[in-house]
Amino acid sequence: MNNNHVVIMAGGVGSRFWPLSTPEFPKQFIDILGCGRTLIQLTVDRFKGVCQMENFWVVTNAAYVEIVRQQLPEIPAAHILAEPAARNTAPCISWACWSIRKESPDANVVVTPADAVVMNPEEFRRVVQNALSFTADKEAIVTIGIKPSRPETGYGYVEAAETVSGEICKVTAFKEKPQREVAERYLAAGNYLWNAGIFVWNVNMITSSIRTYKPDIAENMDRMMASGDVQHIFPQCEKISIDFAVMEPAAADGKVYTHPADFGWSDLGNWASLYDKLQHDSEGNGVVGKVRLYECSNCVVHAEDAGKVVLQGLQDYIVSQKGDRLLVCKRSEEQRIKEFSAE
Amino acid sequence: MNNNHVVIMAGGVGSRFWPLSTPEFPKQFIDILGCGRTLIQLTVDRFKGVCQMENFWVVTNAAYVEIVRQQLPEIPAAHILAEPAARNTAPCISWACWSIRKESPDANVVVTPADAVVMNPEEFRRVVQNALSFTADKEAIVTIGIKPSRPETGYGYVEAAETVSGEICKVTAFKEKPQREVAERYLAAGNYLWNAGIFVWNVNMITSSIRTYKPDIAENMDRMMASGDVQHIFPQCEKISIDFAVMEPAAADGKVYTHPADFGWSDLGNWASLYDKLQHDSEGNGVVGKVRLYECSNCVVHAEDAGKVVLQGLQDYIVSQKGDRLLVCKRSEEQRIKEFSAE
Repeated sequence: MNNNHVVIMAGGVGSRFWPLSTPEFPKQFIDILGCGRTLIQLTVDRFKGVCQMENFWVVTNAAYVEIVRQQLPEIPAAHILAEPAARNTAPCISWACWSIRKESPDANVVVTPADAVVMNPEEFRRVVQNALSFTADKEAIVTIGIKPSRPETGYGYVEAAETVSGEICKVTAFKEKPQREVAERYLAAGNYLWNAGIFVWNVNMITSSIRTYKPDIAENMDRMMASGDVQHIFPQCEKISIDFAVMEPAAADGKVYTHPADFGWSDLGNWASLYDKLQHDSEGNGVVGKVRLYECSNCVVHAEDAGKVVLQGLQDYIVSQKGDRLLVCKRSEEQRIKEFSAE
Repeated sequence: MNNNHVVIMAGGVGSRFWPLSTPEFPKQFIDILGCGRTLIQLTVDRFKGVCQMENFWVVTNAAYVEIVRQQLPEIPAAHILAEPAARNTAPCISWACWSIRKESPDANVVVTPADAVVMNPEEFRRVVQNALSFTADKEAIVTIGIKPSRPETGYGYVEAAETVSGEICKVTAFKEKPQREVAERYLAAGNYLWNAGIFVWNVNMITSSIRTYKPDIAENMDRMMASGDVQHIFPQCEKISIDFAVMEPAAADGKVYTHPADFGWSDLGNWASLYDKLQHDSEGNGVVGKVRLYECSNCVVHAEDAGKVVLQGLQDYIVSQKGDRLLVCKRSEEQRIKEFSAE
């Protein structure tokens, strides 16, 4: 456990949950499930027993550093990495892994988003421990593959091949978000898994992979670590995802594996997925916060406990209240929330 | 004009406009029309040229004195009368008139609620001036009678008889809120007017009328003015409306008159009447505040300018937002708002 490090990617702006989530205070810092813990706090919680507090790392936007400190005071201040500009996940992960290697050259690393939820953390820990054991001394990347429960078109997939060790399989290909018919084929085939963006590797493997597949980023990281000049050098990195930068070429080289998993994962990417995760009352409403409902059904409602919200006669609506900001809209129209909230 | 005094009754709690109006900050102190002035400020404004600022009086609950001072700083502090307990309108008006008589024994007085609206203040002033001229030197009470535009069952009526002077008529009876069929008969008859609760009289006439019809209240007032002990004596007054206490017996004695009027009056007693007073957009929405509407129609919306409210897909709803309090309900259900907002 002392050698395990966890990198939490917490730079998202969460615009699809406006006004609950705003660019000033995005969803990873919100108690979106109404359980008393924010999404990033839940993310830390689920690694209990896997990683000690001084081995957590958070990569986030400079604007959110203070929020991270407040919500996760146990994480060393030097482990909160403030990106001067968003450069997608490859530079983000590179910075964290270069930093980890400096402290702990043999570290075993898990990278995770800050804003997903896991309903079965015990099973999550079992899967992650398996993956960490597998990658500790191998030239291997493991991406956790979620067993799909529906032909979802909003996620990328990994194509799994033969089992190589315990539950771990070889990955033969990464697949981008599919069309509906393709997603149905994946589901029927049985060997396609959702790419949850949770990666496991040892720090030498990932840093050398980045050097192999994205030498420019590796060179920027070397210079950045030597000079400490994050402000100027980090923004020079190519804006590219870790999937494109490393996963796909590494999979082609036979170095990527997946651990199929079923621990109640959701990326909580929209109101529909939040609605699915909430308990429903007898009328099918999923409610977080102090809200009174009269003759409402199949609504998803998020309000602050400090407030007082009364709703009557709403069917199939999203209601989101934060301070003096309010959204009421049909659940069928949630893809327009970005438009609704634009200044 | 120097002899004219205006008494504003501002003790209401306005529970039917929750959460816009709350017991801590009721509707008379709110810019309910979104015009930049609160209802009590608009009430003062409409007497411009009729009454000078030092002759205004406000009777209100002790809890609202500070709000009155802030909203009407020009009114003498000694003219803000803080009721230690609500005792309906007869004791309220008695206190104000006993106080006025002490300062100005020949005063001519207008009594008005704080929370009505008048769309044509110029016509309002003309009518009030007529009534003041009529009552200045007569044993007469004038109640302003609003020409009804619909068979309203939510207001009391006055029955007008022959004209006695200019536009002023004798009142033969007060009628309580009628049933629908009765209200329709009143409308058809043409000589029934809405009782707006706006009264005009000279101070000697009203104080002697109270002494005649409610000697107990008069005696309490005498003691209260002599001792200054409002806290103990005021709550001893009978809880009774000026209509029951004075208007009805005085009408039976032939001393009550009405000035029929048509100056766009509304008591703004509920969301339906606010909706009627607001300008409507092309979809029939009446909106106060910074609100974005998408596919909404026939809604009435009141939100704070400081907030940010987005509504989509609502037909025939009331939406009221104040701070972190929110009501969304069908317009047809507005009579349940008290129930909705109960603690």
